Formats: sequence, structure tokens, C-alpha cells
Amino acid sequence: MTETQRLIRLLLNFRDDRDWDQFHNAKDLAVALNIESAELLELFLWKNPEEADKKRVAEELADVLAYALLIAEKYGLDVSEIVTEKVKRNGEKYPVNKARGSAKKYDEL
Amino acid sequence: MTETQRLIRLLLNFRDDRDWDQFHNAKDLAVALNIESAELLELFLWKNPEEADKKRVAEELADVLAYALLIAEKYGLDVSEIVTEKVKRNGEKYPVNKARGSAKKYDEL
Amino acid sequence: MTETQRLIRLLLNFRDDRDWDQFHNAKDLAVALNIESAELLELFLWKNPEEADKKRVAEELADVLAYALLIAEKYGLDVSEIVTEKVKRNGEKYPVNKARGSAKKYDEL
Amino acid sequence: MTETQRLIRLLLNFRDDRDWDQFHNAKDLAVALNIESAELLELFLWKNPEEADKKRVAEELADVLAYALLIAEKYGLDVSEIVTEKVKRNGEKYPVNKARGSAKKYDEL
Repeated sequence: MTETQRLIRLLLNFRDDRDWDQFHNAKDLAVALNIESAELLELFLWKNPEEADKKRVAEELADVLAYALLIAEKYGLDVSEIVTEKVKRNGEKYPVNKARGSAKKYDEL
Repeated sequence: MTETQRLIRLLLNFRDDRDWDQFHNAKDLAVALNIESAELLELFLWKNPEEADKKRVAEELADVLAYALLIAEKYGLDVSEIVTEKVKRNGEKYPVNKARGSAKKYDEL
Repeated sequence: MTETQRLIRLLLNFRDDRDWDQFHNAKDLAVALNIESAELLELFLWKNPEEADKKRVAEELADVLAYALLIAEKYGLDVSEIVTEKVKRNGEKYPVNKARGSAKKYDEL
Repeated sequence: MTETQRLIRLLLNFRDDRDWDQFHNAKDLAVALNIESAELLELFLWKNPEEADKKRVAEELADVLAYALLIAEKYGLDVSEIVTEKVKRNGEKYPVNKARGSAKKYDEL
């Protein structure tokens, strides 16, 4: 088992011990992911970029990762495969010679 | 190297090839994570829970995971460690006997 | 009719002309609001605070306001009343003598 | 003064009494808007579309509206004007004969 498969196993056990599968449809998992992402973002509100508290970042980021992993599991997606595939696609949208040093979106490059 | 360490390495190489480190402060990474989470959520808008397109879910979820991993790297956080630690804490907030079959928040249990 | 009542009337006419009431349940309206808020936020990504394009801010902000107004209508809420009421409550959570010049949350003041 | 101009006046007074103008740059206001939108969305998490608590919806929606109005003020935008303009543009993207009864995005119609 890879690292993310092991984490997913842990999350599924946690869920099933509480009989929460009934709530975890894909749409609500995506809603939960957005809520946790916003809680992470709140740690940076009204602050300079690096002023967030590391301990709280760790906690909120863990929640984000947990829901992202549960969504991967729901769709039978392999984390390494989809991230690797996306990096390859982004490499085509953002070729080094055009994108270097620029924060523009690919359709504005 | 674990799976997530390998993915982070891939993402850092992609970033550094494009000299994007200058844009990737922690706050903007958290902003980017929120934007990608919302793009994932959009696949479910006006739909029943399981009607999203799997291929597009894979792509948007990959973006979410990419920014989550870059934030972990920015703070020197180990993915397995923070998720495992959070599951343990959630086990205390949501004990099986109280939380079983309930969608209530821990402070309403 | 007040200004927001007039805008709500405009939005309802637009919706009903397209027979979209069937999609506009309160939860999906809240999902749509989050998506539009993220699209507004994207205009600031990787940028300094005041570098967003004003014309695009106007467009995305209009979408945010439209969904916020439709949610108010869905619950029969009066915009002026709920905002005025919230400002009053925030005045109690953030008394001037404690909150002045501080970006802390009320529970940390 | 229109209704939204009056509400903006109220919000600016609240802000200035606390000397918070220094924190309210456009980017952080957009971040705050996203956080409040997510708090509104949380009231619907794991629930059927109409099960959110109306009183809490009113409170969170008021926060969303407050930040939306502050962003409008920051850019000197008139709420009625931008919403009316956007409805007109959406009428072109979603013509009644094509969009009627469909939840598809304009680029898929």
C-alpha cells in the first residue's frame, strides 16, 4: 500500500466506525473540502503572507487533505496518477519558455 | 521517499523550472487552494450528488492536491503525520458512542 | 420598493423566464455563491492587493451580489434589516475600546 | 441615498470607529468574502437543501453582504448598476429559447 492508500484506509475506518458513509456523498465531500479550505485561508486573513500560525495551518491543512483523499477514494482515483497526469498537462499549458517568471494564466500568455 | 514526498518533488521542479517560487508565498497558495476547491465544487452545481463528470473531478482534485502539498512543503509538514494526528484528535472530538450515525458538529453532540 | 427589492425582482424575472426555479434550492444557491466568490478572489491571485482589474471585479462582484440577493429572497430576509442587525451585534463583539487598531478575532481580543 | 449607499455608510462608520481601514485592502476583503461565503455554506453541509437554520442563514448572509458592499465601495462601484449590467450580459449568454429549463453553462448550451 502506498502512503495515500494507507491514509485513505485510516479515514474510511474512522468514517465507518461512526456510520458516516450515509452523509459522505461526493457533493457534500466537495462542500466540506471548500469549507476546510476557507478555514485554512482564514489563518492568513488581514495578515502578511507568512504570519499564519504553523500549528493551526497543520490542523486545517490536514482537514483539507482528508476530504481530498475521501473524494479520490469515492471516484476510485489514484492520487499519484492524477497529480502526475495534471503536472504533465500543465507543462503543455505553461511551457517553460513562455511561462518563466510570469504569473499570467495560460490563456493570457 | 514516500509517495507525497515524491509528488512534492515533482511539483517543486515544475515550479522552479518556471521561476514561480517568487509568487508562491503561503497566503497566495492558500488563496489558490480555495479557487481550485471551488472549481471542483462547480462540477456539482445544480446537480444531484453523484452526477459530476469523473474525468473533470480527477483534474480539479489534482489541482487541489497540488496546492495542498505545496502548502505542506512550505511549512515543512509531513502529510502522513498531520493527517494521522488530526484523525486522532477528531476521534476525541467525535467519540464513536456519541457521533455514530449523527451529522452534528462536535459542539452540538 | 427599496433598491435591493428592485434588484431581487429583476433577478427573479430572469430566473423565471428561463424556468430555473427548479435548480435554485437554497443549498445550490449557497454553492453558487461560493463559486462566484472564488472567481472574484482569483482576480487577486499572485498579485499585490490593489492590482486586480476593476472591470472584472465589477462583473464577478455582481455575480456574488446576485446569489446573495437570491438567498435573501429564498428565506424572506430583508437585506437592510439583516445587515443593520449584524453590525449591531458586531459592535458588541468588537467594542471600540478593545478592537481599535487590532485585526484579532473577537475571541482573542 | 439609496439603500445600499446607506448600508455602506453604516459599514464604513463601523470600520473607521475601529481604525480598521488599514486592514481593508481589496485582496483581504475578497479573502474575507470567501470565508464568510464558506461559513454560510457550512449551514447546509450534510443536509438536504432546505434544512439550514434560517436565523443563522440571516447572520452569515449579512456578513457576506457586508464584505460585498465594502468591495463595491473600495472600487467606487454602484451596486444597482453592476447587477443590472450583469443581468443584461447574462441575458445574452443565456437566451431564453436556449437556456429554458437547462442547468448547462453557456458554453455548453
